[in-house]
Amino acid sequence: MAQAAPARIGDPLEDVDTPALLIDLDAFERNLDRMAAFCAEAGLRLRPHAKTHKSAHIARLQMDRGAVGLCCQKVSEAEALVQGGVPDVVISNQVVGRHKLDRLSALARHAKVAVCADDADNVFDLNAAAGQVGVVMDVFVEIDVGAGRCGVQPGKPALALAAQVAGQRNLRFAGLQAYHGSAQHIRDRAERKAAIDAAGEMTSETVDLLADNGLDCAIVAGAGTGTYDLHVNGGPWNELQCGSYVFMDADYGRNLMADGRAFDTFDNALFVYATVMSKTRDDRCVIDAGHKALGNDQGFPQVLDLPEVTYSGPSDEHGTLDLSEARQALKLGDKIKLIPGHCDPTVNLYDWYVGVRDGRVEALWPVTARGALT
Amino acid sequence: MAQAAPARIGDPLEDVDTPALLIDLDAFERNLDRMAAFCAEAGLRLRPHAKTHKSAHIARLQMDRGAVGLCCQKVSEAEALVQGGVPDVVISNQVVGRHKLDRLSALARHAKVAVCADDADNVFDLNAAAGQVGVVMDVFVEIDVGAGRCGVQPGKPALALAAQVAGQRNLRFAGLQAYHGSAQHIRDRAERKAAIDAAGEMTSETVDLLADNGLDCAIVAGAGTGTYDLHVNGGPWNELQCGSYVFMDADYGRNLMADGRAFDTFDNALFVYATVMSKTRDDRCVIDAGHKALGNDQGFPQVLDLPEVTYSGPSDEHGTLDLSEARQALKLGDKIKLIPGHCDPTVNLYDWYVGVRDGRVEALWPVTARGALT
Repeated sequence: MAQAAPARIGDPLEDVDTPALLIDLDAFERNLDRMAAFCAEAGLRLRPHAKTHKSAHIARLQMDRGAVGLCCQKVSEAEALVQGGVPDVVISNQVVGRHKLDRLSALARHAKVAVCADDADNVFDLNAAAGQVGVVMDVFVEIDVGAGRCGVQPGKPALALAAQVAGQRNLRFAGLQAYHGSAQHIRDRAERKAAIDAAGEMTSETVDLLADNGLDCAIVAGAGTGTYDLHVNGGPWNELQCGSYVFMDADYGRNLMADGRAFDTFDNALFVYATVMSKTRDDRCVIDAGHKALGNDQGFPQVLDLPEVTYSGPSDEHGTLDLSEARQALKLGDKIKLIPGHCDPTVNLYDWYVGVRDGRVEALWPVTARGALT
Repeated sequence: MAQAAPARIGDPLEDVDTPALLIDLDAFERNLDRMAAFCAEAGLRLRPHAKTHKSAHIARLQMDRGAVGLCCQKVSEAEALVQGGVPDVVISNQVVGRHKLDRLSALARHAKVAVCADDADNVFDLNAAAGQVGVVMDVFVEIDVGAGRCGVQPGKPALALAAQVAGQRNLRFAGLQAYHGSAQHIRDRAERKAAIDAAGEMTSETVDLLADNGLDCAIVAGAGTGTYDLHVNGGPWNELQCGSYVFMDADYGRNLMADGRAFDTFDNALFVYATVMSKTRDDRCVIDAGHKALGNDQGFPQVLDLPEVTYSGPSDEHGTLDLSEARQALKLGDKIKLIPGHCDPTVNLYDWYVGVRDGRVEALWPVTARGALT
């Protein structure tokens, strides 16, 4: 069921079949380097999120640059990473259900694997699963620091759960998972900072409360690409879990920096390559990339180098480009690069990355954990 | 990169790992039978759309019930269908670009393959590609009957293109592709009928114009699940291309019948099975199905049998259920069935169908053309 690659190494870019998922390798490597340098300078551990790229190869490139390991959301993603040579994986998410727990504990015999918890019964289940295969598993207590999704409340509920984890024979209390997901996309930087400062305060109080009760939070993890630079300066976090920085996307490009400019620390390195497949009118054309080729949940893609051309009205296999303001004609068969609205769900639609440098295909990397849902 | 199946045949339903794509086999078979019976009675050819199910196995079940062949949107889907035993495939879409044309003509040596065109240059390219491998390929002229996507205008532009097709040595003019995509989702039945009647009028006039010029439209194709029953009674269509009827979805369930009831000719046969993975508050819970498990472009899923529970706020791997009105408690680890908002892009996220009957897994079918983008 995996698809054939849409290109061959050495092909000129124009020869890549569409839709295809392109990586601009220069921009991508700059992004890897920038985040690695930032974390090194700030004295923070970097554990990039593999939910974005789902690639064991990219994970290894991140570890080559100093990442301490990877994190991910699903047991099946962790399996793909470990099979692909990543020795240290944190599932920054809850794992619930017998089959998943069996797989999690089995995997923990082959690599350093940790998981998050926000429920007392789940902690007992984790302990039983670990005990069954004779491993001691690291467990983070997830606290809800404002996103309102998973996680126990900071403070006493977190203390109670951490104490329970610490009391299990086959579990080790590893620290806190304190990620504020929705803060990543707050446009104004001062408001974004306020959300993270508030999260930091709750988290620090919880760290202190746990310390007062003899529970050491060795790792306090969190942060995404939208707030990576706000988890510094004496805040509680010591391990960042950013994912999207490797690629960027149109939605993160709508965040603002302190001076009001668009967020541009990281470069757009991921593109959906698409073809004009129907051109029956001068003022618009149809391209071969719709909902099955693009994650549109955070807005439609932008057309690279053609800001006056807008994408709209996607259906499953088609998108429409409004050419009424276009300064450059687009004709049948022309190929364009789209900056995806949201990189993570876009990547999940493809079997292959096509790595491009200097106008030629240099790499074909499988999207190892594409469709890793369970 | 294909994922392991989330179940084993014989497993009780509750044992299926999540998220998983379930088919209620009884409902699914009823849907297949109902559409087959409708077309037989109406004297219409049925060529179901494989863009919905992307499964060679389901395609064969449809042909067993009288379908004349399948249609699809992509060359790669056609390749998967032919490799899976389907001998007759129409690509109800334009095929543009050298690699795709090479693949299309190569495939035409192994099965009956047809394609749509809406551009004169593309017709020359199709002819050249067919000639290169020594096949004569059927080409439909696509006309825009109101959807405003692909297709030439009805009438004289269609005549000109059809005459061009007919004049090519390696092409055969097969008829008209006259599909009104956006009409499928018009809620009010009278308005839906008006859109299809208008499309029918344009199409009939074009058929007559072509006949006056010696061009026979052997096949006039179109229709989707939302309008399948409106392409009858002397209208121009003789081949229906419905796809979603095999599964239904929440969006089609918002269409109305003539008497104002919800459209219920076909039963919901496709579900995303999901698990409650976080339950830290009484009034809501988090399930393990977000954007990577559900096509949400036509609205969020409904929770089967729990209409008072609403799904909201999906992120990539999570969805939230509002339980404030729930009449039945949901606890950590409980599994629920979601009716997807839109079946086609949902199916495309999975490697496996899990066919269920009488509470047990009876079939595991690969989603053969999952991710078939090119």
